[in-house]
Amino acid sequence: MKAIVYDGDVKLVDIEKPAPKKGEALIRTKMVGICNTDYEITKGYMGYKGILGHEFVGVVESVGSDFDKNWVGKRVVGGINLGCNNCEWCAKGLQRHCPNRQTLGIWKKDGCFCEYFTLPVHNLLEVPSNVEDKEAVLVEPIAAACEILEQIHIKPQDKVALLGDGKLGLCISAVLNASNVNLTHIGKHKEKLDISKLFGSKTLFVDEAENLNASFDIVIEATGSTGGFETSVNLTKPRGTLVLKSTIAAKEGLNLAGVVVNEITIVGSRCGEFPLALKLMENKKIDAKKLVSDIYTKDKMLEAFEANTKKDTLKVLIEF
Amino acid sequence: MKAIVYDGDVKLVDIEKPAPKKGEALIRTKMVGICNTDYEITKGYMGYKGILGHEFVGVVESVGSDFDKNWVGKRVVGGINLGCNNCEWCAKGLQRHCPNRQTLGIWKKDGCFCEYFTLPVHNLLEVPSNVEDKEAVLVEPIAAACEILEQIHIKPQDKVALLGDGKLGLCISAVLNASNVNLTHIGKHKEKLDISKLFGSKTLFVDEAENLNASFDIVIEATGSTGGFETSVNLTKPRGTLVLKSTIAAKEGLNLAGVVVNEITIVGSRCGEFPLALKLMENKKIDAKKLVSDIYTKDKMLEAFEANTKKDTLKVLIEF
Repeated sequence: MKAIVYDGDVKLVDIEKPAPKKGEALIRTKMVGICNTDYEITKGYMGYKGILGHEFVGVVESVGSDFDKNWVGKRVVGGINLGCNNCEWCAKGLQRHCPNRQTLGIWKKDGCFCEYFTLPVHNLLEVPSNVEDKEAVLVEPIAAACEILEQIHIKPQDKVALLGDGKLGLCISAVLNASNVNLTHIGKHKEKLDISKLFGSKTLFVDEAENLNASFDIVIEATGSTGGFETSVNLTKPRGTLVLKSTIAAKEGLNLAGVVVNEITIVGSRCGEFPLALKLMENKKIDAKKLVSDIYTKDKMLEAFEANTKKDTLKVLIEF
Repeated sequence: MKAIVYDGDVKLVDIEKPAPKKGEALIRTKMVGICNTDYEITKGYMGYKGILGHEFVGVVESVGSDFDKNWVGKRVVGGINLGCNNCEWCAKGLQRHCPNRQTLGIWKKDGCFCEYFTLPVHNLLEVPSNVEDKEAVLVEPIAAACEILEQIHIKPQDKVALLGDGKLGLCISAVLNASNVNLTHIGKHKEKLDISKLFGSKTLFVDEAENLNASFDIVIEATGSTGGFETSVNLTKPRGTLVLKSTIAAKEGLNLAGVVVNEITIVGSRCGEFPLALKLMENKKIDAKKLVSDIYTKDKMLEAFEANTKKDTLKVLIEF
């Protein structure tokens, strides 16, 4: 079978269908999503080499031990972090912070951009029957957005700004609007902000937000840029909270003085819990399909990977 | 009378003794402390020009209205932020976040490096009789250290690291040890770490801390350097807290990826409440005098200002 592999270059490689070990499931891929992290990897992020991909929906084809046979035939999504299950973090259910973790398609574990791959049964969740594949495949970024509500208390009267109207920003918009958060989404792209408006956001272009310094109780940074971070610091009220949702590695200078002077709290926020995201989809509280730009067939995998780099693209999916 | 003024250069200038307005006290300076912020101002920080100085102990010489006459003759210290007393921040007692505030010797308000200066009576606190001038004059940096305990909950079993063994670091060491915090103080200077040890810290040199990545529940950054910030991020456990106590303006690059990946919370922390600091001194819970390197007389004001720049100097005071 073909797989999208990164080994210094991105290429299609013929690989063997893997066999599930004890505790693992062999998953037949139905649909995968392409994430910016996949691109970061091809620029050297994490130093990962292997099969790319961590966003999927699939069907359990077989399992490594009879004990797990009830999973066979189930339509599933799955947590991407494989913990050691032997440390304080795994004991808390926080496999994503396990110091010895593997991460599907990101770190020490082949990913899902292929027809078949394995994952521990422990990581699987059955997809509710009323959730389509093209929604379920977005469970990972939607869960990452849900994490914000787990980490901080957003009060009904809090003024919340969301900076960045890329895929991550729109996932966050969908989730926060589903919780009736008083949200102003600030971005640069009319078509993307229009989607956020459908979710319920007030929207502003970045230059319209220039006079709103120190106006927001909570600011969520989802641009991943140094400029976005500094704007976020400026928008935050003294003693307010800045949720840092995208990894920022400033090549140029970065000024943290405002964080100290205004006693701002910055909360780093990464992955989230899949059940919360699936529940939002099952209950039709969010319409994740609005985040999808294109669905490619598997014979056009590399074209799909390429299409994701185009500027105004939202989520690009591959159907197997 | 002579005052240390910054107007592009640092110089001694002859000025008039000011007159207190209604609600103000005229304070006769007894002792002042020199702070790194004073130096930052002479490099352009805040764009401030005027009389420098914000750390003082003095005696109320006169008041602007009869209503406040009971203050006359009292030995006092005083809050350095003058709020508008008309906004949400002032209403909360957080004059230090008032958007229209003045700050003694830092922003729109002449400082205390002179024999007499004024301050609103509202800002004054009487110094307990058993607290010496050379302790009381340190109330501002000690209060800034106390602020950490107001902002975050440090549990008895939390492993806490403090990075930076300058004046600020030693103030923080004194305050946290007074609260029996499980503190490891990491620095570069044996003599300074030895003082921290007297306060009760475990101490390490920076290179001895290299293998302690992700070991501390709470890390306090008090170096003010980009390198110190990045080391602090590395020392913090996943989901841990990093208290940012010194303003950092990175000229080179700065990587915030670890903050997101490990879901670290950064808490910006600036000034604190003076009563807490005075209480620690009154109850002999901290020995602030250990932080004093030199006491100059007022005829050597400029020499004192210069002495503070020397590498191994701790607190430099001027006696009036």
